[in-house]
Amino acid sequence: MTQNIAILGASGYTGAELVRLIATHPSMRIAGLSGERKAGQSMASVFPHLRHLDLPDLVRIEEIDFSTIDLAFCALPHATSQAVISKLPGDLKVVDLSADFRLREAADYEKWYGKPHAATELQKQAVYGLTEFYRDEIRGARLVAGTGCNAATGQYALRPLIAAGIIDLDEIIMDLKCGVSGAGRSLKENLLHAELSEGYHAYAVGGIHRHLGEFDQEFSKLAGRKVEVQFTPHLIPANRGILATVYVRGEAEAIHAALSETYADEPFLQVLPMGEAPSTRHVRGSNFCHLGVVQDRREGRAIIVAALDNLTKGSSGQALQNANLMLGLEETAGLMLAPCFP
Amino acid sequence: MTQNIAILGASGYTGAELVRLIATHPSMRIAGLSGERKAGQSMASVFPHLRHLDLPDLVRIEEIDFSTIDLAFCALPHATSQAVISKLPGDLKVVDLSADFRLREAADYEKWYGKPHAATELQKQAVYGLTEFYRDEIRGARLVAGTGCNAATGQYALRPLIAAGIIDLDEIIMDLKCGVSGAGRSLKENLLHAELSEGYHAYAVGGIHRHLGEFDQEFSKLAGRKVEVQFTPHLIPANRGILATVYVRGEAEAIHAALSETYADEPFLQVLPMGEAPSTRHVRGSNFCHLGVVQDRREGRAIIVAALDNLTKGSSGQALQNANLMLGLEETAGLMLAPCFP
Amino acid sequence: MTQNIAILGASGYTGAELVRLIATHPSMRIAGLSGERKAGQSMASVFPHLRHLDLPDLVRIEEIDFSTIDLAFCALPHATSQAVISKLPGDLKVVDLSADFRLREAADYEKWYGKPHAATELQKQAVYGLTEFYRDEIRGARLVAGTGCNAATGQYALRPLIAAGIIDLDEIIMDLKCGVSGAGRSLKENLLHAELSEGYHAYAVGGIHRHLGEFDQEFSKLAGRKVEVQFTPHLIPANRGILATVYVRGEAEAIHAALSETYADEPFLQVLPMGEAPSTRHVRGSNFCHLGVVQDRREGRAIIVAALDNLTKGSSGQALQNANLMLGLEETAGLMLAPCFP
Amino acid sequence: MTQNIAILGASGYTGAELVRLIATHPSMRIAGLSGERKAGQSMASVFPHLRHLDLPDLVRIEEIDFSTIDLAFCALPHATSQAVISKLPGDLKVVDLSADFRLREAADYEKWYGKPHAATELQKQAVYGLTEFYRDEIRGARLVAGTGCNAATGQYALRPLIAAGIIDLDEIIMDLKCGVSGAGRSLKENLLHAELSEGYHAYAVGGIHRHLGEFDQEFSKLAGRKVEVQFTPHLIPANRGILATVYVRGEAEAIHAALSETYADEPFLQVLPMGEAPSTRHVRGSNFCHLGVVQDRREGRAIIVAALDNLTKGSSGQALQNANLMLGLEETAGLMLAPCFP
Repeated sequence: MTQNIAILGASGYTGAELVRLIATHPSMRIAGLSGERKAGQSMASVFPHLRHLDLPDLVRIEEIDFSTIDLAFCALPHATSQAVISKLPGDLKVVDLSADFRLREAADYEKWYGKPHAATELQKQAVYGLTEFYRDEIRGARLVAGTGCNAATGQYALRPLIAAGIIDLDEIIMDLKCGVSGAGRSLKENLLHAELSEGYHAYAVGGIHRHLGEFDQEFSKLAGRKVEVQFTPHLIPANRGILATVYVRGEAEAIHAALSETYADEPFLQVLPMGEAPSTRHVRGSNFCHLGVVQDRREGRAIIVAALDNLTKGSSGQALQNANLMLGLEETAGLMLAPCFP
Repeated sequence: MTQNIAILGASGYTGAELVRLIATHPSMRIAGLSGERKAGQSMASVFPHLRHLDLPDLVRIEEIDFSTIDLAFCALPHATSQAVISKLPGDLKVVDLSADFRLREAADYEKWYGKPHAATELQKQAVYGLTEFYRDEIRGARLVAGTGCNAATGQYALRPLIAAGIIDLDEIIMDLKCGVSGAGRSLKENLLHAELSEGYHAYAVGGIHRHLGEFDQEFSKLAGRKVEVQFTPHLIPANRGILATVYVRGEAEAIHAALSETYADEPFLQVLPMGEAPSTRHVRGSNFCHLGVVQDRREGRAIIVAALDNLTKGSSGQALQNANLMLGLEETAGLMLAPCFP
Repeated sequence: MTQNIAILGASGYTGAELVRLIATHPSMRIAGLSGERKAGQSMASVFPHLRHLDLPDLVRIEEIDFSTIDLAFCALPHATSQAVISKLPGDLKVVDLSADFRLREAADYEKWYGKPHAATELQKQAVYGLTEFYRDEIRGARLVAGTGCNAATGQYALRPLIAAGIIDLDEIIMDLKCGVSGAGRSLKENLLHAELSEGYHAYAVGGIHRHLGEFDQEFSKLAGRKVEVQFTPHLIPANRGILATVYVRGEAEAIHAALSETYADEPFLQVLPMGEAPSTRHVRGSNFCHLGVVQDRREGRAIIVAALDNLTKGSSGQALQNANLMLGLEETAGLMLAPCFP
Repeated sequence: MTQNIAILGASGYTGAELVRLIATHPSMRIAGLSGERKAGQSMASVFPHLRHLDLPDLVRIEEIDFSTIDLAFCALPHATSQAVISKLPGDLKVVDLSADFRLREAADYEKWYGKPHAATELQKQAVYGLTEFYRDEIRGARLVAGTGCNAATGQYALRPLIAAGIIDLDEIIMDLKCGVSGAGRSLKENLLHAELSEGYHAYAVGGIHRHLGEFDQEFSKLAGRKVEVQFTPHLIPANRGILATVYVRGEAEAIHAALSETYADEPFLQVLPMGEAPSTRHVRGSNFCHLGVVQDRREGRAIIVAALDNLTKGSSGQALQNANLMLGLEETAGLMLAPCFP
């Protein structure tokens, strides 16, 4: 049976990535695409790489007849998402890719996003969308909140270690490198090619990046105590990819074993042989996440390196994986594309 | 029914691209992979982006049992290919990605490749693999010769115009820009990142690039007279993509009409609206070719721009398309992946 | 004697490039920097790569005391430049980097820029800033109009051939590739890193690029008859560099001789040995222009390839070279920096 | 008085960078250039970006008449350097850019480089070339050992803090990102453009990178006790630049003060205002190093970020700075080039 899908905010990168993935999905059909500023335009004009597909034109959200839609992806900016989802039919399944429903507590949302949450009832219903760790809740959810792309990467590296109690919870440092597309298709001077290419820098240094809200929430819940990691993201001149280098106190062998065991049956999580480290180029354009563990020369210290594609496993691929679960489909449907290298 | 596939020369980029595409093919199974220098290694170690796939290890060619193979892709270097294919079982279907069987005349081969052809009987059997123009011959062929990637791009732009007799055959200039992966995974100083990135240059200037052998052969045959184009390739700091800018004498409207009509039912050839020009970034990682036509300010002159991905439509995607035909499968099987942008 | 220099529009790339070059100039001192939207900010905050220099803060133009200024560079947008220069003291030497004074005829300006020229008296005084061909006029000029960066590149390749009467004036095709910085520091979606990197495309196809106004003017004047070239620019994923591949009818030997002779004593123009072609990476960050000539396989046809850095020889370096002449300084002062490779 | 300079190993990137810098040096003259495999070739053919310079051709080392040379830069591979320098005239001033003389103890050399040192007498004479901290010794030295490029970056961030005793010496983590040119002009598969661009990865993970030998030596000496940092380098798809993100225990204010005070009079070291972080793009092609300090959200923890150009301040610029001192010249001569951005 074909599932009718709507994508709200289809003129941004995560929207386009959803279309790319659904294009080879065996049982989904794109029935509605919205894009406020580009309403009236064809997807071929907004994203010429999708011109071979038979897609509806972009419309305003209110022009979509949601009674015919089985599931909507909401790829809108933060805050806008709250307002839009509040007005959607109450029984429509929704996967939200914004930050609006990632944090469980209204106070946390306000702390990290600087204004009160405007849809606290919805916030309570939402399930956190890190598929491998919330699979059961996602299956039955009406609203799933896609994780931050950095937040997903760091959690894949750390959750099994925190759960197993094999690392020092007060001594976690995550140095993360991310590609440019994570910042979206927004007109900012620092995102211009001439500004970004050929150089790299740290940003949001000192523990102020919003994805820390997710780390704090998830790691503390998992550990049963407050956990605060150190986290520094860096912007790298490449379009896709997140590489998290995580410094922990613990035994590398035990860490490798915990990751290997946790992800043994996971279709998208690949733990490399002990001592090897992954590269973002080898997961590019795919839903895979590669993880490596190396023992440091200093005893009792280990480094975990995790790599994924921010637009796929970090957002749109994750969203599709969750949608598959919510619709009772094969979890991997449309997601087994091999990475595109070189 | 599953078709057993062998890929000879699987440690290069076109070999890896074949694996990437076949990974989502509904009825092909990779049964043998050869790589002389890397025999004994796993594909995961040679191409970590393929590590999620269940693939045979790389072996030497003689270790493959060809009695179980339905079709072999031969992604070996020029000259090596002749020697290897000569020794394969005579009834084994083969798609060759090298330059060895592209030229119909032994003399032409010697002229462009600098040494006599060593398998002239095979050369006679081979069918030129530009799918859209040799479809029927390819269906029945035992040996198909994949075209040069630049040669494919230029022919998509020009064949319908030559066939329709609507351009001046003595005044064709093709200025072509190609990405880095077309040069393969070979250790040459000028292919290093530090040498290539941030700059661009013309090479093989003056009509000495080997793909001219294909242009001369195909255009002359099509026109029924000698046709010699001017052709200058340029190396661009990007991994994938060929953009051919072709300057002709003729009416843009007639040219646009000829291209549109010729490719009306072609699944992979997309003619843009009159006056628009394509970009390599919008075909990246896919088997599509985008074509645009623009009228020049000088009357009677037009520009055709063609864009494709050299590793896909320019080589491995084309090869798979041909293999599908040779095996009686759906021509587009495994090839409908949307381009990967950004 | 130190010359006091003002740069109007110093918050853009050509403004920053002027500062970079003047930083090592033996006898210039930057005495004023304007930037309307960023007035009040330090250059270190707008361009952190200049933070080691002792520079005045950005101010509004009217805050600069021009009585103390010996020469002003005007790096403002088209149209704005006319308005601003009209109000500057009439005896102030000015090098304009905009397009406002490149075309000699008001009608030509209106044709290519879509609106009437607002300072036609100034337009008459202006000298066209292609240093090597207007050196004497520039020395005595009050207002010099910097050339278009593409226009400079193409003229270096073609002027000596047109002057010598050794090519067919009706059969000139220029296929040009340029880097990203030529488009300036403007917030346009197509200039974002995620849009631009990894792909390339033709733009302004068909003879509509504004630099054609300069080609038409200069080539026609030089030839004493109307000359209209075909010209297609392409945007390449690199920050700096212009490569012009020019297809002409003529003898390569004669062409090489004409270029070699014309540029024999020029400090910045380097003609490569016959048969070699230049690369943009070898002129990067410098004021040099490299030129190559190759004979085509088709008799009587040749290819000239010219490479320069659009921000240096194509705009700010050219501007400084002209300013040196206007101020009676050594023409090469501040301009002998070697290219930055890799 | 003009100083005659020889560069041994001038066909690699650090050799070319030396030539680029010396090209605008007021009192140095390049009198000899060696390159074993490329002996007999002109520099213009090996490095076309230097073709405007009047340089001697590459020769074999033994063809250089060292009696006319005032100072030799030795830009040869590790181990080769020892052998070559041992045979140079004993009174010739030498700046070595290899790793051969960085470590003071023969045992340390053997530990990190895997074989015994072959010139232990020379090793004893050599002065460690981190200019700002060994200025007096360098002035009087006959042989100066250029530091590792990563080693320089990390030391600029950390030495003032260790000297001031304001950070916990057992809790230092350095996560470093470096560009491609640091690996040299060597033919390795992983340095190809198609392999490197568009992705990033950690290498030498776990404390095995050779520059740790320098950190251990220098930090332990400075602290008067054993200091072992954690260090993970990453390879980034850009040609130039090193960014070190250093995680320490200490007060950010005190750290910022210590850096600011230490570098107050240094011409090339720029400490950014508290809370700001530098970018490699803003030091590109220059001898400057930018340093930033940020307080972490976790009390008592701070992040220091240091950026420099590996080919300039990290190797050839440092080498020239040291040569200036050794020859009694102005320390900054030839080194005040502004960074090349964009």
